[in-house]
Formats: sequence, C-alpha cells, structure tokens
Amino acid sequence: MPADTSQNGSKSRTSLTYASAGVDINEKDSFTESLESTMRKTFGPRVIANPGGFAGLFRLDYKKGLFSRNYKDPVLVACCDGVGTKVKLAADMGVFNTVGIDLVAMNVNDLIVQGAEPLIFLDYIAVPTVDKKMLAAIVEGVAEGCKQSGCALLGGETANMPDVYRPGDFDLAGFCVGVVELKRAINPTRVQPGDVVLGLASSGIHSNGYSLVRKVVEHTGLDLGKVYEDALPRAEQQSGRTAKKSKKKNGANGGAKTLGQVLLTPTRIYAGNIVKLQRNYRVKNVISGMAHITGSGLADNLVRSIPKNCDAVIDRATWPVPPVFTFLQKHGNISDEEMKRVFNLGIGYCVIVRKAFAESIKEQLEKLGESVFVIGEVVKGKGLVRER
Amino acid sequence: MPADTSQNGSKSRTSLTYASAGVDINEKDSFTESLESTMRKTFGPRVIANPGGFAGLFRLDYKKGLFSRNYKDPVLVACCDGVGTKVKLAADMGVFNTVGIDLVAMNVNDLIVQGAEPLIFLDYIAVPTVDKKMLAAIVEGVAEGCKQSGCALLGGETANMPDVYRPGDFDLAGFCVGVVELKRAINPTRVQPGDVVLGLASSGIHSNGYSLVRKVVEHTGLDLGKVYEDALPRAEQQSGRTAKKSKKKNGANGGAKTLGQVLLTPTRIYAGNIVKLQRNYRVKNVISGMAHITGSGLADNLVRSIPKNCDAVIDRATWPVPPVFTFLQKHGNISDEEMKRVFNLGIGYCVIVRKAFAESIKEQLEKLGESVFVIGEVVKGKGLVRER
Repeated sequence: MPADTSQNGSKSRTSLTYASAGVDINEKDSFTESLESTMRKTFGPRVIANPGGFAGLFRLDYKKGLFSRNYKDPVLVACCDGVGTKVKLAADMGVFNTVGIDLVAMNVNDLIVQGAEPLIFLDYIAVPTVDKKMLAAIVEGVAEGCKQSGCALLGGETANMPDVYRPGDFDLAGFCVGVVELKRAINPTRVQPGDVVLGLASSGIHSNGYSLVRKVVEHTGLDLGKVYEDALPRAEQQSGRTAKKSKKKNGANGGAKTLGQVLLTPTRIYAGNIVKLQRNYRVKNVISGMAHITGSGLADNLVRSIPKNCDAVIDRATWPVPPVFTFLQKHGNISDEEMKRVFNLGIGYCVIVRKAFAESIKEQLEKLGESVFVIGEVVKGKGLVRER
Repeated sequence: MPADTSQNGSKSRTSLTYASAGVDINEKDSFTESLESTMRKTFGPRVIANPGGFAGLFRLDYKKGLFSRNYKDPVLVACCDGVGTKVKLAADMGVFNTVGIDLVAMNVNDLIVQGAEPLIFLDYIAVPTVDKKMLAAIVEGVAEGCKQSGCALLGGETANMPDVYRPGDFDLAGFCVGVVELKRAINPTRVQPGDVVLGLASSGIHSNGYSLVRKVVEHTGLDLGKVYEDALPRAEQQSGRTAKKSKKKNGANGGAKTLGQVLLTPTRIYAGNIVKLQRNYRVKNVISGMAHITGSGLADNLVRSIPKNCDAVIDRATWPVPPVFTFLQKHGNISDEEMKRVFNLGIGYCVIVRKAFAESIKEQLEKLGESVFVIGEVVKGKGLVRER
C-alpha cells in the first residue's frame, strides 16, 4: 500500500476511520471474548474446544458405543428461524434477556417435529452499535434456551450494522442442527385414521404475530407498563376488589405482570420433554406425527403433518384460549378467522399418536410438566384440518 | 374463542388484520413454495426430500462405504455469518443477485479453515415487506454460492419485519455445517517455524468494511453509477486516451464496471479449491494452518492460526494491492494502519504449508484457478503476526 497517497481528486481532507463510520472493532472483539464463558455453560463433552477458531467443532459420536446403539442410519436435521418483530417489543421495553429463549424455542421446536434430538445452536445478532450489556443479555437468553433444550451454543455472529438498524433496534436469527435415526424420522405418511391429536399448551403468544400485537397496542393506546387484569394468565388473575386495587399500583401489583411482560413471555421449549417421550418409544411406532404451531396458526401448521388421505378434525372447545388472546382480539376488534390464522390461541405444539397410547402419552407429558389436551382425531379425508 | 367479543374498553372500532400490520401470510407462503425449485438445484443424493417439512434432512453417510473410508472420527463443524452493510450497498444499487454469493462465501470460507468440507447451508433473509423479485434474486445468489462450494441449500427463513427494516432495506444471515475427520481438523498447534504462508488473492473488498466504504462514497460525493478508471481491477483498466474517452461515457464504457459494480463484486469462494487441495494430502501433514481474512484484516485473522511459540512474518511487497483499495484510501484520506485493520487489501485467504511443499501447493492452487503469492514465513516467536 502506498505510504502516503496524494489527495488529488478527493473532496475530503478529513481522515475517515471505521470507528467514524460507526464500527469499533476493538469494542466488538473484547465483547466476543466475554461471551465465551456464557457459551461454555452450554457445552457438553461432545464439543471440541476451539478457542479463537473460525468455526465450532462438535463430535457426534463422542461415545461411539452409545451413539452406534442409538443410531444405525443417522440423519442430520437443520433449520433456521428468527423471532419476528418480538425483537421490537423487547427493544421498546428495554428487556433483552428473554428473546434469546424465544430464538432457541422457535428453532428447536421446529427441529423436534422431524423426530430429531437438538445438538448444536448458533445465533446471529445484528445491532446498530455494540451495547455490551444488551448483547450480553441477549446471549444469556440464548444460552438459557440451549440449556433448556439440551443443545450446545457452538457459535454465533454479532453484526455491527449502523444505517441498517436504527438506534435501539436489533434483529436475531438462529440456526439449529440435530440428529435423527432415519427410520424414526417423522413424516406425514405415518399418520392414519383413528390417531389422536394431543395439543400441548403454549406459554402465550410465543414468537408469531407480533406485528399485529404491536399494531393493536399502538392503535388503541394500550400501556405496556400497566397491569391489565383481563390480559393476565387465568392462574394469575385476582378476583374483585383486590384486582381493582392492584391495578391502581400500575405494575407494582405484588408481582402481577404488566401487559408488556405478558406479551414478552418466552416461547415454551418443548424439545426436552418431546425428546424424553420419544426415548420411551424407540421400537414401537406410537407417535405418528408432530407439528410446531407457529405463523399461520394451528390448522396451517398441523396440516403439514397430515397425509393426503386423512383429515384432522379439531374441537376448539377442548382447550381454554389464554386471556391474552381474547384481550388482544377485543381491543383490536380482530375477527375470529384472523385470530386463528395469526396466533396459536393456546396450543403451541401437537403430537399425533396411536389411539391406544393417547392416554398414556398424555400422562407422561403431564408428568414432565406439560399441559396436554385431547384436541382432535384423524379420520379418512383429503389432507385437511377441519373443525368439529 | 368468543364469537363476537364486546368492544368495551377498546378505543378502536377498526378491525385490525395481520395484513394491515404489514404482514401478508398468503403472499409469503406462495413465495416460499416458488423457492423450492431454486433450492433443489443444490441438492445432492444426501439430501432427503421433505416437502413442507419443519426442518431439512441430510444423510451424512449416504454411501456408507465411502463415508467410513474417509471418516473414522467425523466431527461436525458449524459457523454463522452475515455480509454486514454490503446489503445496504446492494439495496442502494437495486442489485440483489450477488449478495447471496457473498453470504455463502463468508460462511464456507470460515468453515474450511478448520479443514472441513461444507455440506449444508441455510439462510435467513429479513425484509420489511415481501418483494418476490428481490427475494428470488437473493435466493438465486445463495443457491449459486452453494453450488460453487458444493453444499446443499437445505432450508431458510424469510422474515417479514415491517418497522424493523425500512423500505428497501434488508438483512442476511447464513449458517453452514460441514464435516472434518478429527485428526485432520486444523488447529494452530500444527504450525511450526519454517512453514510458508501462501496468500490467495481476494476478488475485491469481499464482505467487510462496507460501513467505511459507504462513508467514503457519501462523504466525498463519489458516484456509484460512474466508471472510475483508477478503481477498476488492473486487468480491466485501459491505457491513456481510450480510458479518458470511455470515462466520458459514464458507465457505458464497453462493459467497464461502474464504481458500484466494482464495490459489489462477490466475495471469492475458496471452498471448492481448498477441499480439492486437501484431498491430495489425506495422510501427509502438509497444510499446517489456514485463515480466512475478514473483518480486522490480514494480521488479526492470520494470528488466530499461529501458535503461541511462533510468529508469522509477512512481506506486504509480495502481492499487489488491488486498485479499489488505493482508490478508497485516497478519496477517504484513510491511514495505512486503518486500511490494514479494516480491509483484506488483496489477500482473502491464507494457507500455511510445510516449506518443502510450498511450491507444489502454489502450483496446484494456481491450476485450480487461484492467484497465489508467497507472502511470508513462520519463525520462532510469541504468537504474533509481524511485517518484514
């Protein structure tokens, strides 16, 4: 490189630097190092230490005997997802330690639909400027999600992108890899008439529909910092006088959640329990299909797991719609059809099982901590999801 | 769900929909389907068809005999990266079919540093609204990058995020998974004094430093649509009169690249050639280290591949700095130190090899189409990269 280039033709005498363009390399490097201890907390023995490496290393068959007993024909399963504009709600509230859990949830819940066990997670975080505290909180959430779902946070990228993201804004993307034994890989052809559809309760809105959620909040002047009794989960609602009294305290209601907190509730991670459940049925073909209920709602996700010669018939009276959905519908004057197309309305994950095992599987999942409803059945049909 | 909820307490009588909040589910679904044929072009026999699935399936040991001959202790390798604010330049120019190549390049070039062979790629595209033409162009670029690097585009996510992204803006993240044999996994402890550092030419700025690039362009009033003779690659520069004449044509210079086109040149993908090279040295320990030169420049990336008891001594006179860097330095009045810290300055990838094999490896890489320079050597030291 020429040592001191002439300035002919240049309209600038100011010396430009990367920092003046909004990117401070030193700042970013020191942050990246500080994340390593958070990531290490998610490492099992299958992760190969590779400090300063360009990529993460993971040993699938760390214990050869164990691995080859479980996997004769291992198939890698991979998926990618973000959390949509839930990041915008998190940014508005200045709460950054839960969207990482959402990010892992959106990915591992997709992965387990194929019968897979999650192994590896990586995250992409894009920000306008490096705010260490915010980034550390996000990555802590990601690591927490990884611990909950039993996968290693093997790597990630923090992209410093002034101009693309406005101050306070950010985006998240996640990527998950797992493994499934070929003949146990779930596919729609297994589902047959007579099977029962079990619905696992969601923890709230999860990570879809937030552009509409935020539109309702803005349009109707709802206050994210206020406690709305009728938006709280039923178990947290109080009766009569106490409720009115606590509303006045505006968020300091003996721990009652503000609307913002209710809306920011992390997406439930089903991975741990579904993987445990499947371990009980290594030989028997008992679980015939699964579905993660995300954007487009119950019907449009469940239909992906139904073969062309069957219908799933769902009875929406079999589970309670959490109050937060009714609250948003009322305030946004949203039609029933739109609600069903956008939100999970209380069911976050479906497991389709052989009828003879339905009760036992429901009990096992409940023992593991899930709330489970028998929401429908599979009949002969045309590959549709219908309502009873 | 209540059929017709009362509007008590609601300030809105307008019925809100997801589409009115900027998200059209139907639009997105039809687009997703149209992408499948683009993705299928990258599929090899190891990809298991899974239409409508929640995750992609990939069979690592599709040919058991071949796989077990090459891999006794297979290790999964995974990484994640974006293309930084090069997306902003692409958006400004309205050219969307090359940033996907950049995205794959940034990931696979990281992955091969560990000695790995890329297998699976997934992309995350975030946009304010679904613009099918733009999204199709992006995914075509991603698929092209996957073909160049021999990996399958197994899945991806298109996130529709009004409010986070301004009209015209977008972001990209990519994830790559590969496999390496445990004892062939490259790590810094292999490098030893006497080794030679080979530098592989970059195709231009690649995908780092674009916040500074764009700052220079804006600050000095450079015109992205104009041909600047001194920004063109040397092979494309014309001499004397012809050059002056063609400048006047302002972009119609018999195909001469505009500044915008020079800046948008896709990142070179080294994966194919590096994987081929490594196949020639399955037994011999000839390649001792590698480095992908990204953000922070040559020294700060090469140092990650140097053990604590060695230094790499680089002679910057051994390769030509491409004109685009000198052009930007001149116009932005950027210091030499800053240029070295931000840009690759002509070397996009390093291969550290045993001295006895350096000439042969250089020739092999050149036959495969790389421009290769002997840029330095490894000596006893303290884990630093120094200049001669």
